[in-house]
Amino acid sequence: MTFSPLLDQLIQGLRCLPGVGPKSAQRMAFHLLERDRDGGKHLADALLQALEHVGHCRLCRTFSEDELCLLCRHQGRELHKLCIVETPADLLAIEQTGTYRGRYFVLLGHLSPLDGIGPEDIGLPALQQRITQEAIQEIILAMSTTVEGEATAHYITEMIKGVKTSISRIAHGIPLGGDLEYIDSRTLAHAFESRLLLSSSSVAE
Amino acid sequence: MTFSPLLDQLIQGLRCLPGVGPKSAQRMAFHLLERDRDGGKHLADALLQALEHVGHCRLCRTFSEDELCLLCRHQGRELHKLCIVETPADLLAIEQTGTYRGRYFVLLGHLSPLDGIGPEDIGLPALQQRITQEAIQEIILAMSTTVEGEATAHYITEMIKGVKTSISRIAHGIPLGGDLEYIDSRTLAHAFESRLLLSSSSVAE
Repeated sequence: MTFSPLLDQLIQGLRCLPGVGPKSAQRMAFHLLERDRDGGKHLADALLQALEHVGHCRLCRTFSEDELCLLCRHQGRELHKLCIVETPADLLAIEQTGTYRGRYFVLLGHLSPLDGIGPEDIGLPALQQRITQEAIQEIILAMSTTVEGEATAHYITEMIKGVKTSISRIAHGIPLGGDLEYIDSRTLAHAFESRLLLSSSSVAE
Repeated sequence: MTFSPLLDQLIQGLRCLPGVGPKSAQRMAFHLLERDRDGGKHLADALLQALEHVGHCRLCRTFSEDELCLLCRHQGRELHKLCIVETPADLLAIEQTGTYRGRYFVLLGHLSPLDGIGPEDIGLPALQQRITQEAIQEIILAMSTTVEGEATAHYITEMIKGVKTSISRIAHGIPLGGDLEYIDSRTLAHAFESRLLLSSSSVAE
């Protein structure tokens, strides 16, 4: 409780942001009122506009204020490649690497029967339809390595078994520059199992 | 750059919050759009309302949407005590201790000639007028221990020299529970100089 109900309301409002506790929210509110009222105004406007207009792309389901997002409308993307991710943030992370030039499908979640999230909720019927209708030659699964992510990847693999297309999964292992001694043992074990053969000549003479 | 201009605008807008970099802003924007659109709406409304209506209390200069803040209107406060702080956040910190029942004056800054902040900018004429008009018996200075805070405290002490009132300053020293070995040496030196006599008997026989 502060000395101004509207200020209290603002502090409460800021607490809906992830990672913002009571102390940070208070600091943010004071900062905006004391030093950056213009910034606060812009933030409020940007929030209202985004909340009102940003929906999902009809084709890939990422965030978009238009029916089709910029990526799906882009002429230069490779149409025969499709990368499947869990969230728009994952899509963005892949885009920022600049290595992938195909298109995406965003699940907006993962299968989680305990929470009542089934195949329809993550758009799998639409995905299947898209894969069979478009001439997609390569599908890249980029789900996270949680139990739910693995289950989702497995379900999708089973679902499109009959379709003529290659399916791959992004590699998991030691991050580049990662120190073996600080890597968790599950990752290290996985990296061992997924080792790549560099050269091979028969050991027996 | 994401795939949606309005989303970009929202991420940019969130960066005006203190302590929020590009990655956190992105995470906040995705969180609001994916999981908490209601929270986002409330935040935008709270921001607009606070920015439009919250000004400063005419008497103590803290944040208030009314001419006089709740503290200045409160009948139960001790009218003869006045605590001078730099910011509304400092006021709130003192209020939360629950030990002080007097009233406040918020400078909204500190003297800083290099930045062009003089006595008028931090309301010292109004403070002087208030001290001479009201029957204030005790003034407690609670400025921070920065160079500017010290200078401001010194200036105020000089300014009200002629007025019949006691002036004190909140104690600086080792925080309760603070470990001597981890306290910075300036604080430790100050704590030594400001030591309190517990009992005294003549050393010489």
